Amino acid sequence: MERTLSLETINKIGQEIRLCGWVNRRRDHGKIIFLDLRDRSGIIQIVCQKQAKDLRPEDVVEIYGKVKPRPKEMVNPKIQTGEVEIEAKKIRVLAKAVELPFDTGVDKLKVSLPTLLDYRPLSLRHSRSRAIFKVQETIISGFRESLKKQGFTEIQVPTIVPTATEGGSQVFKIKYFDRQAFLAQSPQLYKQIMVGVFERVFTLAHAYRAEPSITTRHITEYLGLDAEMGFIDSFEDIMAMVETVMREIFAQVEKKNKAELELFSATLPRLSAKIPMMKMRQAQEIIFKRVGRDNRREPDLEPEDEREICRYVLEEYGSDLVFITHYPTKKRPFYTYPDPKDPKYTLSFDLLGRGLEWVTGGQRINDYQMLLNNVKVWGNKPADFDIYLQAFKYGMPPEGGFCLGAERITMQILGLENIREASLFPRDMERVDIRLTEPKSGAKENKKK
Amino acid sequence: MERTLSLETINKIGQEIRLCGWVNRRRDHGKIIFLDLRDRSGIIQIVCQKQAKDLRPEDVVEIYGKVKPRPKEMVNPKIQTGEVEIEAKKIRVLAKAVELPFDTGVDKLKVSLPTLLDYRPLSLRHSRSRAIFKVQETIISGFRESLKKQGFTEIQVPTIVPTATEGGSQVFKIKYFDRQAFLAQSPQLYKQIMVGVFERVFTLAHAYRAEPSITTRHITEYLGLDAEMGFIDSFEDIMAMVETVMREIFAQVEKKNKAELELFSATLPRLSAKIPMMKMRQAQEIIFKRVGRDNRREPDLEPEDEREICRYVLEEYGSDLVFITHYPTKKRPFYTYPDPKDPKYTLSFDLLGRGLEWVTGGQRINDYQMLLNNVKVWGNKPADFDIYLQAFKYGMPPEGGFCLGAERITMQILGLENIREASLFPRDMERVDIRLTEPKSGAKENKKK
Repeated sequence: MERTLSLETINKIGQEIRLCGWVNRRRDHGKIIFLDLRDRSGIIQIVCQKQAKDLRPEDVVEIYGKVKPRPKEMVNPKIQTGEVEIEAKKIRVLAKAVELPFDTGVDKLKVSLPTLLDYRPLSLRHSRSRAIFKVQETIISGFRESLKKQGFTEIQVPTIVPTATEGGSQVFKIKYFDRQAFLAQSPQLYKQIMVGVFERVFTLAHAYRAEPSITTRHITEYLGLDAEMGFIDSFEDIMAMVETVMREIFAQVEKKNKAELELFSATLPRLSAKIPMMKMRQAQEIIFKRVGRDNRREPDLEPEDEREICRYVLEEYGSDLVFITHYPTKKRPFYTYPDPKDPKYTLSFDLLGRGLEWVTGGQRINDYQMLLNNVKVWGNKPADFDIYLQAFKYGMPPEGGFCLGAERITMQILGLENIREASLFPRDMERVDIRLTEPKSGAKENKKK
Repeated sequence: MERTLSLETINKIGQEIRLCGWVNRRRDHGKIIFLDLRDRSGIIQIVCQKQAKDLRPEDVVEIYGKVKPRPKEMVNPKIQTGEVEIEAKKIRVLAKAVELPFDTGVDKLKVSLPTLLDYRPLSLRHSRSRAIFKVQETIISGFRESLKKQGFTEIQVPTIVPTATEGGSQVFKIKYFDRQAFLAQSPQLYKQIMVGVFERVFTLAHAYRAEPSITTRHITEYLGLDAEMGFIDSFEDIMAMVETVMREIFAQVEKKNKAELELFSATLPRLSAKIPMMKMRQAQEIIFKRVGRDNRREPDLEPEDEREICRYVLEEYGSDLVFITHYPTKKRPFYTYPDPKDPKYTLSFDLLGRGLEWVTGGQRINDYQMLLNNVKVWGNKPADFDIYLQAFKYGMPPEGGFCLGAERITMQILGLENIREASLFPRDMERVDIRLTEPKSGAKENKKK
């Protein structure tokens, strides 16, 4: 007999069917045992008798039974199959589960984050975890599809790189045969090279940062959603593309992930007709006037400034997002285009959302001599950038691009407290699947920032 | 003035337009200079006079001009814009290129592969290189879209892993803070874990092999197109899914990449109504009968056997593809399901195409005790597989999956001689962008196999 998915039962009332899935929860009512069966399409209630007496959560079963409408007073509006239930005829166990380390039959798991990660293969099966990664899948496909519509080509770039191009301290070293190589901190140089080939490119690339600290916003391996585009008329073209992409992502999440958003009581960012933009110095000035904090000579926005300017923009413009532009030249990488009107600042931007950086981007230097000079001024050896510099030596149009972290956007859209919840198998200096060090006097469990 | 793409000119005859792109080629005819301008949509002919006298290949230009129909005898059927040309009014140079190291204005670059790779940012701009990566983009999206239609969830798995799970010698080591970690040889264990979460998953994952040899078929970093599915009734379900995916890939390449296929005089694989399948031992028997080579007791197919059985299947069944099944247990990884009827062989398969392995896959052991036992029999420590084994301890249905190498499929579809041509920035033991060692007496340039 063909397998029926739980969600398909609502169209099969009165029919004999075969279901497969996991026991999500078991409730005993005298001789009657109710099982919630979970499969990839959702949850369905199975009414059993003694056939189910030895079953426990996460047992994998095949159930033959009949689809019946539930009595009116028993309808469960919280699940899509809430108007039906299955009268079990025969149950076959496909695989047994051992006893679980914690109760998974609850709306929200009652365990600490380290425990959640220690038992990742199990905790990921919970409805809230599944929801996070369904939303993440949509974010990624929204990014991809919006760019394909705009004439971008999807490319695949390497992560093993010959030199630590963006600063040596936070880079992981690889033993590469009898040499040393490094893990890429971003696909930046390759996506720029590829502007020379396809004009508009994007890539989904793992990026690696050897950050020797534990925060709620950083992991050592993350997925960058990177785009780069040539023949821009100004750096505002790049911000316009970011806005197009973000709107498509939100539209797709809105459409595909209503249930997931509800589970987290999450709402998508509020947007005004156009995302507001202001220079970093303007933002500091506004903050000074609002709350008296004088960071007007600081070379970057402090985390508390990012939160404050987001509050301001939400009040003034009704927008959860804001572009901050013109960061100082010395705070941006060597390839960032200086503002011709004031070269101490750059044609760069961050998109802030709900108090945190969501996207970073800018126009790049496309003139070969100017770029070569900057490589040297930043203290790098041109020979280490040979392949990259070639792309500019052989003609590169005005260009720029941007990058989103997939995990961070997921975290921000759903309002998660820790980025680790938005990574299937998060890596940090204390964990690569298993804990690398034991937590010191329980301090780690509550660590925040 | 809005930019017009070269391909859009065919609908703008008589109009004044602005084009942007690279000088692909220059031909002087007395006072008239013909430029081929290249942009992301294709090539178009520009008719210039002295404004173009200082231009050379790869200069980046903006051209204001008028779209004119070409005289009948001047129509060029080889390019999509062959019926029009642009009369240039004004040319502005956006970026100059230095003199090129080789002539790029030819149908096929006349340089060796090492030189092609030494000048990758330039050589990738050639029409043949661009074609390769447009086809690769289609292969990847064909894989993704066919699986999404079949209820698969796209997942993102890490590449930094705690243990060298699939054999220690060919794995790259990373210095991970004060520890050692490794680069994943495949996303295998993670995709299996995720069957417990979403039943059907796929991932595009970089895989790393420290192969200390140079062949035409291997690179040290490649893109794996990996899928895994639960609740299979038999391992033939997996092969049926492979067939569905391959047919979708071919259909999409056929539809989107006609021009690219033509450039390589490539034809898509011939397919019979159903891809033929046979056991490895049967294949060896057939080869013995056909050509007298007796490898009937060998534990694997030799490269020449793979080519021979493909010839046989093409002659007998009119198929360029064939499934070879039931490889010996000792030649497959510890998680491969042994055939209950003859446990010396496994429920595994390779899909061979045109003499080479295209896909590998099989059913996995889903019973926890059996898997735990195999981890030990294969000489591994269960503690190193803690996270992986958890997925089975907490209930895993019968499952299996498969993997394609994106570069290899690209190479095979286009009939390329070397897999490096199908990787934007190929890595091997002698190259990470730049050559790590100098070629010895020119031998490397011709190295094949």
